[in-house]
Amino acid sequence: MRNNNTTTTMNYFSSDFKLGILGGGQLGKMLLTETRKLDIQTYVLDPSKEAPCQFGATKFFLGSLMDYDTVYQFGKMVDLLTIEIENVNLDALDTLEDEGLKIYPSPKTLRLIQNKGRQKDFYVENDIPSSKHQRFVGINELKKALEKDVLEFPFVWKSAQFGYDGNGVKIVRSTIDLVGLPDVECIAEDMIPFKNELAVIVSRSVSGEVKTYPVVEMEFHPEANQVEYTICPARINETVAQKAQNVALQVSEAYNHIGLLAVEMFQTEDDDILVNEVAPRPHNSGHYSIEASYTSQFEQHIRSILNLPLGSTASKVAGIMVNLVGEEGFSGPVIYENIEEIMKIPGVTPHIYGKRETRPFRKMGHVTIINENMKEARKIAEEVKNSIRVISQI
Amino acid sequence: MRNNNTTTTMNYFSSDFKLGILGGGQLGKMLLTETRKLDIQTYVLDPSKEAPCQFGATKFFLGSLMDYDTVYQFGKMVDLLTIEIENVNLDALDTLEDEGLKIYPSPKTLRLIQNKGRQKDFYVENDIPSSKHQRFVGINELKKALEKDVLEFPFVWKSAQFGYDGNGVKIVRSTIDLVGLPDVECIAEDMIPFKNELAVIVSRSVSGEVKTYPVVEMEFHPEANQVEYTICPARINETVAQKAQNVALQVSEAYNHIGLLAVEMFQTEDDDILVNEVAPRPHNSGHYSIEASYTSQFEQHIRSILNLPLGSTASKVAGIMVNLVGEEGFSGPVIYENIEEIMKIPGVTPHIYGKRETRPFRKMGHVTIINENMKEARKIAEEVKNSIRVISQI
Repeated sequence: MRNNNTTTTMNYFSSDFKLGILGGGQLGKMLLTETRKLDIQTYVLDPSKEAPCQFGATKFFLGSLMDYDTVYQFGKMVDLLTIEIENVNLDALDTLEDEGLKIYPSPKTLRLIQNKGRQKDFYVENDIPSSKHQRFVGINELKKALEKDVLEFPFVWKSAQFGYDGNGVKIVRSTIDLVGLPDVECIAEDMIPFKNELAVIVSRSVSGEVKTYPVVEMEFHPEANQVEYTICPARINETVAQKAQNVALQVSEAYNHIGLLAVEMFQTEDDDILVNEVAPRPHNSGHYSIEASYTSQFEQHIRSILNLPLGSTASKVAGIMVNLVGEEGFSGPVIYENIEEIMKIPGVTPHIYGKRETRPFRKMGHVTIINENMKEARKIAEEVKNSIRVISQI
Repeated sequence: MRNNNTTTTMNYFSSDFKLGILGGGQLGKMLLTETRKLDIQTYVLDPSKEAPCQFGATKFFLGSLMDYDTVYQFGKMVDLLTIEIENVNLDALDTLEDEGLKIYPSPKTLRLIQNKGRQKDFYVENDIPSSKHQRFVGINELKKALEKDVLEFPFVWKSAQFGYDGNGVKIVRSTIDLVGLPDVECIAEDMIPFKNELAVIVSRSVSGEVKTYPVVEMEFHPEANQVEYTICPARINETVAQKAQNVALQVSEAYNHIGLLAVEMFQTEDDDILVNEVAPRPHNSGHYSIEASYTSQFEQHIRSILNLPLGSTASKVAGIMVNLVGEEGFSGPVIYENIEEIMKIPGVTPHIYGKRETRPFRKMGHVTIINENMKEARKIAEEVKNSIRVISQI
């Protein structure tokens, strides 16, 4: 089926066609909602037997995403391969692609994104606006640069690989902040005083059809400096929104990316747009789309990689997303305290990812708030944030 | 867990709690989308190993829904039981309920609904407006009634049990139409000249919270007398809509029903509302709600039976649903011809139930059309209806 498909249409629905997904976390789980809806067979590979994708896939395979043989063998069983996590064995993907397997996003794109140093270099090469950066092979090289005044405080330290959800990122204001930083390949970025953190999800299909979702805004807690709400549409003026959309499209085109590309950006004090980083897959900043958009980001990813027509990215209503993370001081079997309280409020939908055990700051789910009126949605979001607690049984 | 729960809140989410679902068809499949979203464990029983619910449930069990032992043993494994099909072994449910299992809808309600003769008697007893009917134990008794002029042509013949999707229903205008009718328990109903066929879905939780969805309208093909479109909201005046809502609430209350109750009604030439029949579960007439409503009917069913707060039944946008049924003349591995064409249109979402083989008139899926503007939605629905074909290879 794979190699002799010369027609443009393909029967994916209730057929023998098999979509492989590398990674079985919450993003994979929400992808499976869409593949079930369209009855597309899926094989999922994940190292954890408790992965959220253990249910809903046609077949679930247990195995390392970083092991060449495991990923290669998995790839040989499917007709098309996608990812829900970037940290996968790219050498295996290279071989599979050479042998004719369709892989979206391509291993070439993944390689450019997987390493944050390489990602930043790519922006420079492609005239994509981004903060200034320097790359270091380890912490000692970074310290030497400080000594020689090639690098100056303050800066943002980022681990080049394997960072996620704020791990592997630290604001370094003085020597004392260097204590405890791991000796890994890293980058140092200029600190950008920004007004807003924005994101745009671009979908791009195999045949080159492109659609962008509206600009979303991350609202931070005034003291804790943590994202509290992802808000769609962003409460910014049309000029800035258009600029952000254009930069996101520029990035997607530079990568020649297929599938979803989430582009996180800073809106500076001067209303410049600087790319922070990208994710070549469905993204936390697009979760609101399940309830608020004509087409959810997960359905759009499937449409993109299967070269189906892209769906409308317009919103039906305003949407705000609140992450559900494990509260500090609680570890063990999870309880979602006051979930009944928030479910009383019209337009409030909890998504529970299916992790049995909570840990401090673990991403356990999210809540979407939709409303015809953005102000009302924002008010309800705060009510939700102040009610629900992710804790454990004593 | 089942018998010593005295608190009003219960931890259903990512817990050991198990919801049992009798039946594993498309309604069950769409229920599983919601249980997965909330991470509620589900056990599903169905006689077909190709049932749409074979994926997405925590555990899928193969077995007869009409067999006492099978249903009883299945019930012993779960903490709460619901159905997605009415034809299940009620004696087993009676025993399970006596032994303390929560079953929603209750076997008592199911018994009243399972037999259409009993259902019609119930309307008479409870002053619920419905067409006049007579009950017969078999075809010969019906023929005798015709001979004695106790029954007159034309009338609607209905099999008392096991009818679905138009099976077991026939308009009888003369003796010739009696040929071929099976000798089963049946009813004869007065033919109602109606302007509209309407439906209202009522949700009622364990604690008695009640919410109704907007009135929907079934638009028939002008010649074929087949439902072509389910339209929400119905294009009727507010007085009729209010009357339909009230009748639906009256029916739900009379049954003391818990979960969803879909009430199908006729709007007569004189704008009277007559109940046609009911279904104690998510219903075809509510499929539009997945895309168009603040809370889908499937999530609402889960909320009702778990005694969670009911969600808003308001619509975000206008919704129209088109059933995808197998085309005449085609049997075998299914192909959804032109599915790419309809996916090009903004607001069009296909749902493929996952049946590998099509047969004439088999329900294979549905398509939802949503739009801010009802006239536009209706136009697109026609485009969808005229494009997509459910056929087989060759």
